[in-house]
Amino acid sequence: MATVLESNVDVLIVGGGPAGLMMATWMAKCSINARIVDKRGTKIFNGQADGLQCRTLEILDSLGIGHRAWREANHMVEICLWNPDENGVIRRSDRIPDTIPGISRFQQVVLHQGRIERFFLDAIAEASDIRVERGVMPSSLKIDESLVEDDAAYPITVTLRHLTEKEATPRQSSTSVNGEVVQDGLFRSNLAKDDTQDLLELSKLRDKANSEEIVHAKYLVGADGAHSWTRSQLGLKLEGDSTDYIWGVLDIVPITDFPDIRMRCAIHSASNGSIMVIPRENKLVRLYIQLTTTEKTGDTSSRADRSKINPQVILESAQKIMAPYKITYRKLDWWTAYQIGQRVGTSFSVHDRVFLAGDAVHTHSPKAGQGMNVSMQDTFNLGWKIASVVKGHAKRSILKTYQSERRGIAQELIAFDHKFSRLFSGRPAKDVMDAEGISMEEFKAAFLKGHMFASGIAVNYGASEIVAKEGSREEHGDGTDVSVANVQSNVISDESLCRGITVGMRIPSHKVLNQADARPWHLQELLPSNGRWRIIVFAGNVTNSEQRGKLEKLAQDFGSQSAFLSLYTPEGAKYDEVFELLVIHNAPRTSVSIFDFPEIFRPFDEIDGWDYNKIFVDDVSYHEGFGNIYDALGISHSGCVVIVRPDQYVSYVGPMENTAAVSRFFGGFLRVQQQ
Amino acid sequence: MATVLESNVDVLIVGGGPAGLMMATWMAKCSINARIVDKRGTKIFNGQADGLQCRTLEILDSLGIGHRAWREANHMVEICLWNPDENGVIRRSDRIPDTIPGISRFQQVVLHQGRIERFFLDAIAEASDIRVERGVMPSSLKIDESLVEDDAAYPITVTLRHLTEKEATPRQSSTSVNGEVVQDGLFRSNLAKDDTQDLLELSKLRDKANSEEIVHAKYLVGADGAHSWTRSQLGLKLEGDSTDYIWGVLDIVPITDFPDIRMRCAIHSASNGSIMVIPRENKLVRLYIQLTTTEKTGDTSSRADRSKINPQVILESAQKIMAPYKITYRKLDWWTAYQIGQRVGTSFSVHDRVFLAGDAVHTHSPKAGQGMNVSMQDTFNLGWKIASVVKGHAKRSILKTYQSERRGIAQELIAFDHKFSRLFSGRPAKDVMDAEGISMEEFKAAFLKGHMFASGIAVNYGASEIVAKEGSREEHGDGTDVSVANVQSNVISDESLCRGITVGMRIPSHKVLNQADARPWHLQELLPSNGRWRIIVFAGNVTNSEQRGKLEKLAQDFGSQSAFLSLYTPEGAKYDEVFELLVIHNAPRTSVSIFDFPEIFRPFDEIDGWDYNKIFVDDVSYHEGFGNIYDALGISHSGCVVIVRPDQYVSYVGPMENTAAVSRFFGGFLRVQQQ
Repeated sequence: MATVLESNVDVLIVGGGPAGLMMATWMAKCSINARIVDKRGTKIFNGQADGLQCRTLEILDSLGIGHRAWREANHMVEICLWNPDENGVIRRSDRIPDTIPGISRFQQVVLHQGRIERFFLDAIAEASDIRVERGVMPSSLKIDESLVEDDAAYPITVTLRHLTEKEATPRQSSTSVNGEVVQDGLFRSNLAKDDTQDLLELSKLRDKANSEEIVHAKYLVGADGAHSWTRSQLGLKLEGDSTDYIWGVLDIVPITDFPDIRMRCAIHSASNGSIMVIPRENKLVRLYIQLTTTEKTGDTSSRADRSKINPQVILESAQKIMAPYKITYRKLDWWTAYQIGQRVGTSFSVHDRVFLAGDAVHTHSPKAGQGMNVSMQDTFNLGWKIASVVKGHAKRSILKTYQSERRGIAQELIAFDHKFSRLFSGRPAKDVMDAEGISMEEFKAAFLKGHMFASGIAVNYGASEIVAKEGSREEHGDGTDVSVANVQSNVISDESLCRGITVGMRIPSHKVLNQADARPWHLQELLPSNGRWRIIVFAGNVTNSEQRGKLEKLAQDFGSQSAFLSLYTPEGAKYDEVFELLVIHNAPRTSVSIFDFPEIFRPFDEIDGWDYNKIFVDDVSYHEGFGNIYDALGISHSGCVVIVRPDQYVSYVGPMENTAAVSRFFGGFLRVQQQ
Repeated sequence: MATVLESNVDVLIVGGGPAGLMMATWMAKCSINARIVDKRGTKIFNGQADGLQCRTLEILDSLGIGHRAWREANHMVEICLWNPDENGVIRRSDRIPDTIPGISRFQQVVLHQGRIERFFLDAIAEASDIRVERGVMPSSLKIDESLVEDDAAYPITVTLRHLTEKEATPRQSSTSVNGEVVQDGLFRSNLAKDDTQDLLELSKLRDKANSEEIVHAKYLVGADGAHSWTRSQLGLKLEGDSTDYIWGVLDIVPITDFPDIRMRCAIHSASNGSIMVIPRENKLVRLYIQLTTTEKTGDTSSRADRSKINPQVILESAQKIMAPYKITYRKLDWWTAYQIGQRVGTSFSVHDRVFLAGDAVHTHSPKAGQGMNVSMQDTFNLGWKIASVVKGHAKRSILKTYQSERRGIAQELIAFDHKFSRLFSGRPAKDVMDAEGISMEEFKAAFLKGHMFASGIAVNYGASEIVAKEGSREEHGDGTDVSVANVQSNVISDESLCRGITVGMRIPSHKVLNQADARPWHLQELLPSNGRWRIIVFAGNVTNSEQRGKLEKLAQDFGSQSAFLSLYTPEGAKYDEVFELLVIHNAPRTSVSIFDFPEIFRPFDEIDGWDYNKIFVDDVSYHEGFGNIYDALGISHSGCVVIVRPDQYVSYVGPMENTAAVSRFFGGFLRVQQQ
């Protein structure tokens, strides 16, 4: 018998969907030794469209792929609400912007999951040698509990099995593709040119088929979907509402006289149910129709119902709801019928060594367009934390904030989905006396409120050792105790210094100009996802001697041997390996040059000269207007210091003078690097 | 002896630089049977940086690659003028926006030629099977003059020789690469990941080395550079100023205390000469220094001078000019010294069958940053014309407008370059009595004036059969007679109908909203380069019965069997194969739907349903402001019709009522397709 291959890896990711790929992208960007395996033989190519939240686009942009999504996606601009009039005939009752104006530099768009996966794969390949290992599935998982607190150890042992091509072929590409009878099938026009290489690589599976290998890992991330193998190995459960809905989804190129077919629409008919219209790329339109409500999952009769659903059934429902307008199609891209409960994992991790993310820990209806977003944001939250622990920058204690932060969001998501589904599916009230019916005023109010949540911008992480704000560190988030171990490090922000920034939320973005070349940038563009913490000094008017004095004192303090910069940056590392110092002032741009700023903000390198990308100014640009970031964020003349996490969430706000607080904050969870 | 391979091709392009690649991109976008050959074995990878004009970016965007250039390029925002003060010490005397605000939705940027070539190669591969055939050089050219007016004939015969790898290796990659002594060399950090495939393909050269083939072509485009083989075969000459300058160019990562090193700077020292600073990508800065002026090209002593120039000589000149600021470097990317006359070809074509483009017909100094732009714009002008003749849509007579339009531009360019070079190189005047010196006021005035020219936006093509405006068709352009053969077709625009549009110039761009989905688009984004003519109907307020009546009448006329749409669209072709009808109205968006417009503006397809991308509105958007295109273009309440060429230049402006003029205009140069 041949020897079984055995190897070590810092991070093993199970699952190559959006959550797993986001994790792998962080690993690539942070140069972490990682592997990612997926049981399917190829990436997915179509179907499974999803809305991309504003916040997701901001995140993709921070990873260098936002522009690709923005360019290829269909931009949904307006939501039209259609309701029965007094004669029971549907009419447009309202128009609402699909994204609340001003909350982000991006607006919600729609693009199918296969493209998002392609962008991740390209970003991973550009930054690292990590490749998704396809047709590979874990077959056993052991955790050595005695080693879980040992930073150098590999406490996790996983056996990986290389599948045969047949085992690795998902149903989606194995079914026939011939127009009207396509079922969970491939629409050939959606096969992008840059995906063809992937298909060719399928043949490589054969070489290793049926072999096994053993991997020892420091960390394991189970992003392996609703039927998560990892979750079941850990014995963890999903809990939640057992009321399931059956949904029909139809992706067609519609032929219709309905005037708003290229708008996102919520159509409530008087007595034929409701439909959600989602216009997509390439003239496609997705129709979501809730077909039944059953009381129990696993109920045999409800499963049977589902099997009777086909495109014709869904189309006929749509035709009834949308009458007197006509709708039909000649091109069917994809359709499905499914049933999903609204459930959240009881725990998101075991020993802070094995983590679950995405559908593995929360399931809900697809209609709110949140699924892929929340899943990717799970690992966007987790990736930099694991990377900084693996690199020895941070203590393991920060890892418990993954559960406190993300389980809390999943709970909010489920509540949102529950409410939204009920409102969407209900029969419109006939009049104010119709208590059983859904009032359209109530629907619209909920819709508007849900809007902010659905943008992803509303996420507000609770107090913890990496979010320095008031409040109980036990009660925030999902209830996990994330208190600061060292009371010394228990720093509290002064949010009065910039009313437009909320500690725990992502930093809002406005345009600022580079002092050295006058080019405008969105603030968030200065915060790419590369694992660095940012300390942004809003220095005010630096031609004012008081502000200038404060900035010089701050630079002197930050530069001292006992301050965070020196303590927590590894010896020999580049000056901004762990912390990037940025200054944004609001003196007139032409009144100063970079040489008027302390050298700490324009670090010198013997070969590359000065760094010209750390000093920015709030001033008018020639071609892109005036960002007015001081006004927008409510920053006072006395300035302030803002600490931004590697994922763009705000950790701390304090006065320029209190430089000690910054060092104390980082002292709570970072490791001293130099003696 | 083996049989020599012999084949036919519609268009043969010689030269795979920017001009040749632009031509090939048109061929790809218009599905023309074309080949492109280049004697070099690989594309270029670095050096040869160039500014990209606003207009060039608009053009690249129309080809689907503008965003790649915009993203990778360094954005130059401000020009700083530095001059000697009363003590002879340089000081910043002025700041000017590098691009005139408002003239384009893009601003001038800098990116090296190797990247532009990559974007073209990708666009060509995406749209066609055309590939640059490298290591291939023409060795003979014959034109059968008896066939030049025969549309079906292949009057051009070219012998192509496949070179050996050694012959195909340009000097740039053959010299050693070791830091300070690099000369016209490769900077390895500039080798982009997506170029590596190209290098691997070099080996394919060997298979065909030393073989010959014969190609019969309908059209030949010589985009083969300043030493054009095609030009010399045709016996054509360049004419112009024989005063040559020697330029030193140094691409370095500077280490300097000069505060404006990331700005574009023109620095005139009191007595040590002048320098132009061009900040580039990756911290690189290009320094242009004019080192000597000689009176005659080919003068042996001046050639000798040039050989003595090395990076140290150029650096020392820069150090003298920039004193008291210090400048040095540790990283040298590339350098060169060259000597270029300012000359224009006497003729741009022979029999309107063989055309010359780019450096093959105009040479000038590189400093104005115009070279690559004007070269690409030559073939951007030529490509769609040849494509429409090859397809049988247009008569051959439109081909003579290539010379009238582009030779005129080349002449303007040379005049601009001459003036600019003199002003730039001269010694600053000591005072107003110093007649020999250059007044800095004069320099700034010329600079500002040159600005509009340098943007590429000022191009204004003369009257011809494809530009319907007042003026002598003999005197406009370069003097070529481009009169309309058929007096019936001699249509004249009424430019008073929209004062913001100039017939002969590219159509300005402002945002409009799609009526069907409310998404904002820049007008130019609706005009991708695919060979189509656009008829844009500015219909005014279509809720007004008079305007609505006019629109309906117009639609009826355009739809008649005797109108251009029916006459000049091939039978069986898609409804917008030759002409795309767009309407932009200014009634409130929510007051109408697409079904309120004549069907000609929302063509129906049995499989794809209605076309939702032809009806637009001038209204406010939720997230991107209000384009206000009616005000910006000065369009009156009565509306107008604008004909836009496939290259976005305006052919005609007239009233909505005069639909006959539109048909008459197209009758001048298009071929009747149906009997």
